[in-house]
Amino acid sequence: MTEPGLRESTTLAGLLRHHTVRSFTDAPVTDETITALVTAAQSAASSSNLQLWSVVEVRDAATRRALVDEVGTSTFVADAPVILLFVADWSRASAIAAAQGESDAAADYLESTLVAFVDAALAAQNAVIAAESFGLGTCYLGSVRNNPERAAELIGLPDRAMVAFGLAVGYPDPADTAGVKPRLAPGVVHSRERYAPITDADVATYDTEIAAYHASQGRPTGWSRAVIRRVRDAAGLNGRDRMRAWLTGRGLPSI
Amino acid sequence: MTEPGLRESTTLAGLLRHHTVRSFTDAPVTDETITALVTAAQSAASSSNLQLWSVVEVRDAATRRALVDEVGTSTFVADAPVILLFVADWSRASAIAAAQGESDAAADYLESTLVAFVDAALAAQNAVIAAESFGLGTCYLGSVRNNPERAAELIGLPDRAMVAFGLAVGYPDPADTAGVKPRLAPGVVHSRERYAPITDADVATYDTEIAAYHASQGRPTGWSRAVIRRVRDAAGLNGRDRMRAWLTGRGLPSI
Repeated sequence: MTEPGLRESTTLAGLLRHHTVRSFTDAPVTDETITALVTAAQSAASSSNLQLWSVVEVRDAATRRALVDEVGTSTFVADAPVILLFVADWSRASAIAAAQGESDAAADYLESTLVAFVDAALAAQNAVIAAESFGLGTCYLGSVRNNPERAAELIGLPDRAMVAFGLAVGYPDPADTAGVKPRLAPGVVHSRERYAPITDADVATYDTEIAAYHASQGRPTGWSRAVIRRVRDAAGLNGRDRMRAWLTGRGLPSI
Repeated sequence: MTEPGLRESTTLAGLLRHHTVRSFTDAPVTDETITALVTAAQSAASSSNLQLWSVVEVRDAATRRALVDEVGTSTFVADAPVILLFVADWSRASAIAAAQGESDAAADYLESTLVAFVDAALAAQNAVIAAESFGLGTCYLGSVRNNPERAAELIGLPDRAMVAFGLAVGYPDPADTAGVKPRLAPGVVHSRERYAPITDADVATYDTEIAAYHASQGRPTGWSRAVIRRVRDAAGLNGRDRMRAWLTGRGLPSI
């Protein structure tokens, strides 16, 4: 980079160092730290300032164990000091409407589900960036959507609220060797004025890169085979082909 | 904050200064800057490393005008130097599957739509944070979902891809007086172990705060009335009650 504003951004340097952390030390994550993460999360943009997300902080060992055994998250969740459960949350808007004798019918629509998930994601990403700037490590947990009903029960979610994803937070185990995973070349995801599709050469290049990275991590696999396993049929969804039913059960029918 | 790691995080300080910018100077946003934003975006977590998002950079004046006149975004989009259109993108996975003679049936499911929107949001938020660290300002544009079909046509999106939201990017007009909007108290969105609903007192407190903020910006309105206008019926959705049909038209039927 030649432009000074880019070169000198310690924030950019931090973003580019991001990698997932699944193994944590016993160092405590203080309440003050979590409050700073929540405040950072709240600083993210929110569609029409509706603030359609909430976060439930889980430290209780029995709840973390239940997330593994009953919801279907990875086993390391039982060993992480803090799990933040980010909630796509229309229940607050519904409560405000109910207090004024008004309907909450617009929460039924798919647009409403999407905007709550996006609000939750923008907020969570700010929390991740803040956490990494404090020396913490994180791992997103989409696996809380393997059983959204049980996840909701565990933390007492009201109607019209669903756990969108979790975030494990803690100080990284220095023995963890996870590196910065290579991504598709910027020119593959970024185009100018008109969308440009991926080429066979792009796929082959990245398959080689990711296989080399995974080999260094002890599990040599390519990328395109993993993509195909996920996209070819409902089996790749790990039970989440029921997501519309799950959401309906949570009061977000996504019509 | 008493903990040094929190006090000394310039990244956290940057996050807390975030505010939306809708008015930009003529200062050019260079290609190098946009590439840095894309690279930052790619550093965000991606579900199973599927990288289910793309970004189309729009500078063309006619396209920006069409976003305003035909898609229904705010008029300032015609005056912003760069619009980044973030795409929820299963078309890449579908192309990879097709090249191997495989199906892409799993892209039909609501879970697949959600994960692509979340991937796009995490990426975009990294771009926002990087942009602000360079002195740029941004504004998210959910309004590109007012007519996803026309937005897709304008940038030539293939099947199984939809514009999730836009992001206006440019150097902030110094005359713009938009401030940091107060949010709900951290204790309202954050609870420990079990979800805690908002109270009437929380709503009253925030209504007073936001009315004072808006009064300083020349448009005195509270918060709870705006929430109710959005949630009470489909009229609050500004046409986006058709989102399932729009998505189906884009090859993302969200079954």
